[in-house]
Amino acid sequence: MAAYIEPKVLKGFRDFLPPAEIVRRGLIEKIENTFRSFGFVPIDTPALEYAEILLGKGGGETEKQIYRFKDNGERDVALRFDLTVPFARYVALHKAELTFPFKRYHIGKVWRGENTQRGRYREFTQCDFDIIGSDSAAADFEILYLIRTALLNLGLDITIHVNHRGLFNRFLSYIEQSEKSADILRTVDKLSKVGADETKKTLTDLAGEQNAEKILEFIGAKGDFTETLNRITELSGGDCPESERLASLHWHMLEAVSLDEAAGENKKADPFILDPSITRGLDYYTGVVFETFLNELPDIGSICSGGRYDNLAGLYSKDKDSISGVGSSIGLDRLLAALESLDKLPTENNCRVAIACVDADKSGQYQALAGKLRQEGIPCEVFTDKIDLVKQYILAEKKGLRYVIIPGENPLDGAITLRDLAERRNVEVSIEEAVLKIK
Amino acid sequence: MAAYIEPKVLKGFRDFLPPAEIVRRGLIEKIENTFRSFGFVPIDTPALEYAEILLGKGGGETEKQIYRFKDNGERDVALRFDLTVPFARYVALHKAELTFPFKRYHIGKVWRGENTQRGRYREFTQCDFDIIGSDSAAADFEILYLIRTALLNLGLDITIHVNHRGLFNRFLSYIEQSEKSADILRTVDKLSKVGADETKKTLTDLAGEQNAEKILEFIGAKGDFTETLNRITELSGGDCPESERLASLHWHMLEAVSLDEAAGENKKADPFILDPSITRGLDYYTGVVFETFLNELPDIGSICSGGRYDNLAGLYSKDKDSISGVGSSIGLDRLLAALESLDKLPTENNCRVAIACVDADKSGQYQALAGKLRQEGIPCEVFTDKIDLVKQYILAEKKGLRYVIIPGENPLDGAITLRDLAERRNVEVSIEEAVLKIK
Repeated sequence: MAAYIEPKVLKGFRDFLPPAEIVRRGLIEKIENTFRSFGFVPIDTPALEYAEILLGKGGGETEKQIYRFKDNGERDVALRFDLTVPFARYVALHKAELTFPFKRYHIGKVWRGENTQRGRYREFTQCDFDIIGSDSAAADFEILYLIRTALLNLGLDITIHVNHRGLFNRFLSYIEQSEKSADILRTVDKLSKVGADETKKTLTDLAGEQNAEKILEFIGAKGDFTETLNRITELSGGDCPESERLASLHWHMLEAVSLDEAAGENKKADPFILDPSITRGLDYYTGVVFETFLNELPDIGSICSGGRYDNLAGLYSKDKDSISGVGSSIGLDRLLAALESLDKLPTENNCRVAIACVDADKSGQYQALAGKLRQEGIPCEVFTDKIDLVKQYILAEKKGLRYVIIPGENPLDGAITLRDLAERRNVEVSIEEAVLKIK
Repeated sequence: MAAYIEPKVLKGFRDFLPPAEIVRRGLIEKIENTFRSFGFVPIDTPALEYAEILLGKGGGETEKQIYRFKDNGERDVALRFDLTVPFARYVALHKAELTFPFKRYHIGKVWRGENTQRGRYREFTQCDFDIIGSDSAAADFEILYLIRTALLNLGLDITIHVNHRGLFNRFLSYIEQSEKSADILRTVDKLSKVGADETKKTLTDLAGEQNAEKILEFIGAKGDFTETLNRITELSGGDCPESERLASLHWHMLEAVSLDEAAGENKKADPFILDPSITRGLDYYTGVVFETFLNELPDIGSICSGGRYDNLAGLYSKDKDSISGVGSSIGLDRLLAALESLDKLPTENNCRVAIACVDADKSGQYQALAGKLRQEGIPCEVFTDKIDLVKQYILAEKKGLRYVIIPGENPLDGAITLRDLAERRNVEVSIEEAVLKIK
């Protein structure tokens, strides 16, 4: 046995100290409550799966990043790198046990051997939610409305940049560039990263100068939602189911927002922008695609993206019925960073009070006293060590507490002393008065 | 790319379908709320660590079970197999950032390549809680009282079997068998598995017949707490700090329980049994050790075990100050099984109502109507597909819902029809009446 092992964590991995973990769990709880309020249900899948299953749809990039190894039984296994692929496998495996349309969320860790120099983590939490087994506009709309509600419940105003991959493909077909659609979509997806000139150059190489200009005209269409929609519909050869879907989503959202009492003063705001340059790089999207930006902090990038896809579980399913769906994923790390810089981190349910240890023989009574506060919904710590009272104040301050209760001779009867650490003042109060003050 | 990949999960790993996952998350939330009410704070650590760190204290058994591999950077890494070793590493690494006594909990998945034939899972959730940096009886007592409170909050009455490793060692020293203490402790720990005869045989081989009988007399001491304590104290050479600690814990617990209003009718019960045969197999315990049994279902085994240890982070720390502590771990899988057979699974916050899709153009209004229920704390699903109403009832029943709201021409104004799926009856009500009925 070694006498000393240096304590360290792997690069790209993180320990969470209590203040960060309290915030992270509080955020997840709030988001989860919104999901549950919409009737979405949670699922979970293993961290480790057969590598064949996880890599089934993956390309070269995934293969390089995945944590893959042989287990003790010589099975070829890997850590999940997202929650989408396991969900596809899950739906194929449990189809008979699920009720469709199936609305689920899944919050869990995923692992990617990313280059940490780009500020990426190798272990991070994903938060996915989907409706599968419905092609309706109502399902598309619900996902978008759920995004808006979840973020509104965190005190955040958002704008959703929406587009339709099918309309984009229809346009490409109209200009006879269908066979290059995958390459063109990927090029357009990188527009904001590489800039207009570089994009134009790549598109010209791909489709010729004239078509490149048409594509740039399409993705650059501007105006309000309806103006932009009219313009790109026209460029695609006229009205079609895809343009109607976009119009319908916009109309549903405007109606819901105008009726939404919870939104208060923001009720008139249109949370949508039709942005034809949004394509999402991933191959599997076929319908509506979207990215979500914070109105107060747009530069942080999209904090919630997704879209509609066909045939989620096709790769793992022998039967012909395809299951289409629409889904999205919240980027928790980015959202946390945003909430922190906007000073909107959730803080509730933090312990703010401790009972000082004055007499080591009274632990039982101290816990019973704390129990009275806990029954009122007030978390309450009991200090376990009889040290100088001033040192107990300092300890409480270090822990970020606001109050210390100094129990009397009979902790449960009569007055207690309540120390307000912020005001540096002691008051004699009854237990009931202390409860009111701390609340 | 493969055309079809068989969907399957690795042996010993599990998918969680929504009903099971709702229960699991509800249980974790309830336990977590109790921890938080005691001022315990959450932490998190990476799933993957340097193998050297995780194996530092491990023996042969751990080495065989651990998921260990080389990552893409040729680092020797492994998945954590418990939350104790990462916590020791965490404390050594972050000592300067923590406030002691430090009360933390950690709920997370761990992985062990166990033999699945024994009904063991290879991926399971642990739920650990500890107080470190305090040697006080109050800290020992708080962990035990927290166990009692957390399980009481789940509707479970428990008995904690408690013992003191230090007193056992003092007894072994008194009969001059100290040098064999590790072997003797391990033998005693297996008593309930291998039976009295086998244990006696092994002890005789280890310590001779006379000592084996003394050891069996010690671990077989019976009576109420005080009688048993007196007997084993006498067998160990008389009063000592360890016997005083046990007496003090018992006295604190009796006092707290008698004062505990939340416990209601059980307030007179003594939740302790002094059981000298409890030693816990693990080497690192040095003080109080305990196992927790459900009064209604004792045969399921201990659902929460732990004890006091010295020098938690010693292996990863260069400085001489050791950090002692006391901690415990709830076996979530076993607890879930127990709650299920006692019909006490938490069920709150389940969605019980959906709004039927009568007019596909009214999704916005339906979401706004659902919003009124959600604001009242009632989760409400909105069905997204306009199918036959009877089919929507069937869908709702499959999802385990109780009510379906059939919205009228103007969903937000005037009466709605509320379908009670259990009573197979429709009533015309206002939105406010529907809220009252569903609540």
